[in-house]
Amino acid sequence: MTERVYMERNILQGNQAIAQENRNLLKKESILTMNVLSSPGAGKTTFLEKLLPKIKERFNVAVIEGDVATTLDSERIAAHGVHAVQINTHGACHLDAKMISGALKHFDLANFDMLIIENVGNLVCPAEFDLGEDLRIVLLSTTEGLDKVVKYPVAFRRADAVILNKIDLLPYLSFDVHQFKADVQRLNPNAPIFLISAVSGEGMEEWINWLQGKMEKV
Amino acid sequence: MTERVYMERNILQGNQAIAQENRNLLKKESILTMNVLSSPGAGKTTFLEKLLPKIKERFNVAVIEGDVATTLDSERIAAHGVHAVQINTHGACHLDAKMISGALKHFDLANFDMLIIENVGNLVCPAEFDLGEDLRIVLLSTTEGLDKVVKYPVAFRRADAVILNKIDLLPYLSFDVHQFKADVQRLNPNAPIFLISAVSGEGMEEWINWLQGKMEKV
Repeated sequence: MTERVYMERNILQGNQAIAQENRNLLKKESILTMNVLSSPGAGKTTFLEKLLPKIKERFNVAVIEGDVATTLDSERIAAHGVHAVQINTHGACHLDAKMISGALKHFDLANFDMLIIENVGNLVCPAEFDLGEDLRIVLLSTTEGLDKVVKYPVAFRRADAVILNKIDLLPYLSFDVHQFKADVQRLNPNAPIFLISAVSGEGMEEWINWLQGKMEKV
Repeated sequence: MTERVYMERNILQGNQAIAQENRNLLKKESILTMNVLSSPGAGKTTFLEKLLPKIKERFNVAVIEGDVATTLDSERIAAHGVHAVQINTHGACHLDAKMISGALKHFDLANFDMLIIENVGNLVCPAEFDLGEDLRIVLLSTTEGLDKVVKYPVAFRRADAVILNKIDLLPYLSFDVHQFKADVQRLNPNAPIFLISAVSGEGMEEWINWLQGKMEKV
């Protein structure tokens, strides 16, 4: 495994340099950039579909969608009248900074003040790759089970906010929200935790208030 | 990206050779090997916890658990009196044939007639890596949403059986089972589809009957 690990380290260093270029470019244009991570099926796209109509009157939002093979997600986002660019990774399990750099060329950045990147559905690989974002949002859904926080520590440790989605299903699951909060806080004492249902809209307002606070500081 | 793709191809070729060695070794010992793939949180471990008590009287089952960082899953399996070995991938998003080859040294293979490998929770990377298994089982849960079949075609196309888990939550979700079956069958007309709830046990019997049929052919 040593050779593989060494290779990965080289890839990560190369990625970091490009991520910093992305960050500088986005900062120059006063764009707040958010990288959204979750497992597949945790509800990232539904979450964005709920978020975008509520913020697009106030902010000009661009979206980059990462997916292994399809354009399904960017089509869902574009249906909300938001400029969305799809990156297909052709099998790779995460976005990297170079892919983002390429996608940014499709936007006239002067027209935007927020960029949302929906990463490939995965809590392992995307956690290692800085894309140049200001905020990293990790989303877990109640149906995935409590053990995921302990199992994917890197993702949770580096999150700027943690969102628990699908709280509308809590009555039908044995998911201990109290324990979830304790597990997240042990790994990452500073990240705020939001409980939401992207389907019902419950809890979205508190989260949007937090996001708006971040926008004011850009 | 070209360099990366080339590198991946080399890795896959190296993997394939070791997978074939694993397959030969397991075949010699008349062990049926099953590689279980799913997203994190789809219920793989709960599924095995329901399966093992029902089959361990008839078959001597060994389990290999893949995880990024913890030993939580192998502890859950060992609690059922089954010999389980944990592989921690230290960040890698899938098991490979070499890891399995190493784990097999921890078992006295002559004592077993079934090996179950629980892969790292992920539907992207594990799909590309043959481990030497006879059967590849892909598990999707109803809460992940219908689009996952189209989004992760490689995993579904190469499955020997597809299991839809968490059917107990169907009344609370907008998940179209008919469409799910049609999407799977379009990618993979030959794979049988089983609808189960690992929590309630519903549908487990039909699936176990299928598995038992495979055991008789070893």
